Amino acid sequence: MAISNRSQLAIKQGGWIRKMFEVAIELKQRFGDDNVFDLSLGNPIVEPPQEFTGEVAKLINSPPHGYHRYMPNAGYESTRDAIAQILTQESGLGFSHDEILMTCGAAGALNVVFESILNPQDEVIILAPYFGEFTFYIENHQGIPVVSQTNESFQPDLESLADLIGPKTRAILINSPNNPSGVLYPKSTLSQIGALISKKESELGSEIFLISDEPYRRIVFDDLIYPHVFEHHHASIAIHSHSKDLAIPGERIGYIALNPKYGHKSQLMEALIFWNRSLGFVNAPAIMQNTIRALQGVSVNIQQYQDKRDLLYSELTSMGYQVTRPQGAFYMFPKSPIENDIEFVNLLQEYNVLTVPGHGFGRPGYFRISYCVDDRVLNGSLEGFQKVASEFI
Amino acid sequence: MAISNRSQLAIKQGGWIRKMFEVAIELKQRFGDDNVFDLSLGNPIVEPPQEFTGEVAKLINSPPHGYHRYMPNAGYESTRDAIAQILTQESGLGFSHDEILMTCGAAGALNVVFESILNPQDEVIILAPYFGEFTFYIENHQGIPVVSQTNESFQPDLESLADLIGPKTRAILINSPNNPSGVLYPKSTLSQIGALISKKESELGSEIFLISDEPYRRIVFDDLIYPHVFEHHHASIAIHSHSKDLAIPGERIGYIALNPKYGHKSQLMEALIFWNRSLGFVNAPAIMQNTIRALQGVSVNIQQYQDKRDLLYSELTSMGYQVTRPQGAFYMFPKSPIENDIEFVNLLQEYNVLTVPGHGFGRPGYFRISYCVDDRVLNGSLEGFQKVASEFI
Repeated sequence: MAISNRSQLAIKQGGWIRKMFEVAIELKQRFGDDNVFDLSLGNPIVEPPQEFTGEVAKLINSPPHGYHRYMPNAGYESTRDAIAQILTQESGLGFSHDEILMTCGAAGALNVVFESILNPQDEVIILAPYFGEFTFYIENHQGIPVVSQTNESFQPDLESLADLIGPKTRAILINSPNNPSGVLYPKSTLSQIGALISKKESELGSEIFLISDEPYRRIVFDDLIYPHVFEHHHASIAIHSHSKDLAIPGERIGYIALNPKYGHKSQLMEALIFWNRSLGFVNAPAIMQNTIRALQGVSVNIQQYQDKRDLLYSELTSMGYQVTRPQGAFYMFPKSPIENDIEFVNLLQEYNVLTVPGHGFGRPGYFRISYCVDDRVLNGSLEGFQKVASEFI
Repeated sequence: MAISNRSQLAIKQGGWIRKMFEVAIELKQRFGDDNVFDLSLGNPIVEPPQEFTGEVAKLINSPPHGYHRYMPNAGYESTRDAIAQILTQESGLGFSHDEILMTCGAAGALNVVFESILNPQDEVIILAPYFGEFTFYIENHQGIPVVSQTNESFQPDLESLADLIGPKTRAILINSPNNPSGVLYPKSTLSQIGALISKKESELGSEIFLISDEPYRRIVFDDLIYPHVFEHHHASIAIHSHSKDLAIPGERIGYIALNPKYGHKSQLMEALIFWNRSLGFVNAPAIMQNTIRALQGVSVNIQQYQDKRDLLYSELTSMGYQVTRPQGAFYMFPKSPIENDIEFVNLLQEYNVLTVPGHGFGRPGYFRISYCVDDRVLNGSLEGFQKVASEFI
């Protein structure tokens, strides 16, 4: 057998988003690109903001000496300073570069964090619906994902969390604005989660991390302010990526930020730096570290995503779909009009509309729409949604 | 405890190169940059070739539509085509993009390979002296590194290999030109290793990969031709990085190439693509994939490294050091004049000359010199080498 048992299992289970990717290719070949409405991928269609292109051009026109070389595995101090500065502004806590590690995106960051903190069989609680890759990121480092279902509006269920936290619990991983639901966890909820963890830590005599995966932190609608996690728990870790806010997911640049008030932060940072190197990332790409330094306040035009949300939400609800109104990211997670979400996604496919079943996010009975697509695609999909709705709603 | 047991152990063991990095900072602060001769790091001091800068500029001036987006996890087909083409030219075998996966450097590539092929407790044979990170890359994926010592010229010892190959052996990992010794394994040796593996595969009824880690493939001296591994074993995998040949180690770009004649190549490639995504690399940085496409025949000026080798080899041997003459890379691995290489490295440090003890490469009794440094540093180090030599040789 050419591959490991784990590889065989993983490939067999596949991953829904990848399956839809393959379906999309097939349908586009059969019906033509313009007749397929692919809402399955979270791949921003916008180009990076002008400021990004400007920074790259500056770098190329006057390259700093030796800027393609290895730098310390944590990243350039100047880039980490810039991030510390904006986090200080936003959170009111005093960050320094010592609490920042540059990573190959959020996916790299999460793997580095889990390798650093998990002993074999340690549990990490994730909140469904969740990004499907989370289970791999945890299992890659011998951890066990434990699923807590959220309530009907996809907000954390404190009772479920309280029931699931036990002596093997090492971390709770949250993701807000959430992929796939687009909901934002309010400050009050973060505060409740923090209080619950503190209570459990005392009872169990353990340390439990609150890990906040925040690739959509800057894609928040309705003038809401993003509530940072740090003030709510001492052992908290925020993970950011510039994939979505600067529309550069192919470039793999993000960071880990540790709570400046966390008592063991130096030891944890030492482990993070070590594993950033030895898991094979080595360092975040130099050219991107040099580019995003000056772009910490910049993001793509959020209004366009909000407009798409407004259009889609209004259309779907008027067709009779039950939808929790997203407050961020660029996903919507409507209830499937029939119980079996996989069957429903197949029905939509008959109209060349591609979405992802809730099964792929640990929440059957729903389906995910990714609306970071051209209006042409979004508008084109409406007929399919309407036809299936008139049959089943 | 903030970090996992494995993290604690790893940090405690440290890693010699990192230790020397810290020593260097301290010495430079005390004595000034110009008075410290740091030969401990494999960080090319040259700038990337002009062609590289030209390609990046072209990209920035006429950016292809959507080129910062996610692409298939294997990388752009056009980039993989370009690599397939040069490998076809060089090896005489017919490569296509289906056998190429773009990775975040060689470190990323090796982690992806090991996760794809290793079951827990599977053994990977490495040849000492070896790059110290290899043991982590194997253990990260539940494998066990098994060390085969090479002969006095750091060439593979076929008898040792034959003794070590058993039912748990899943792969042999070679690295030529070798870090830290700079030796190149000749074609005849590869052929012998291939024959040995085939014999053992038949005896054991198993499949054993020959993995060739080749970041220094294009840094070969004395007009030698690099011998590719593919013709010598069906289940062979080559791993390349552009860190050294284009002098861009901070950018993290490399690839995995599978032997086109390997029977299970599609299944293996599927696993590699899966883990490239799910270990958190996702894809090799887009901007670098777009840049190196047109640079497959290009490398930094090799002559400068050969000149540095000539200078250092001639100086050290005339001082009485025993040195195996390197045929590639930019390292030299002389015998320590005293038995304890760590003690010897400390003696050199008293003259502000920084090297790495053979202990860090699984080969005590030797020390590594990295000569990818300015001539000023190389020449400045000679006095220290001379002084210690006159005391101990």
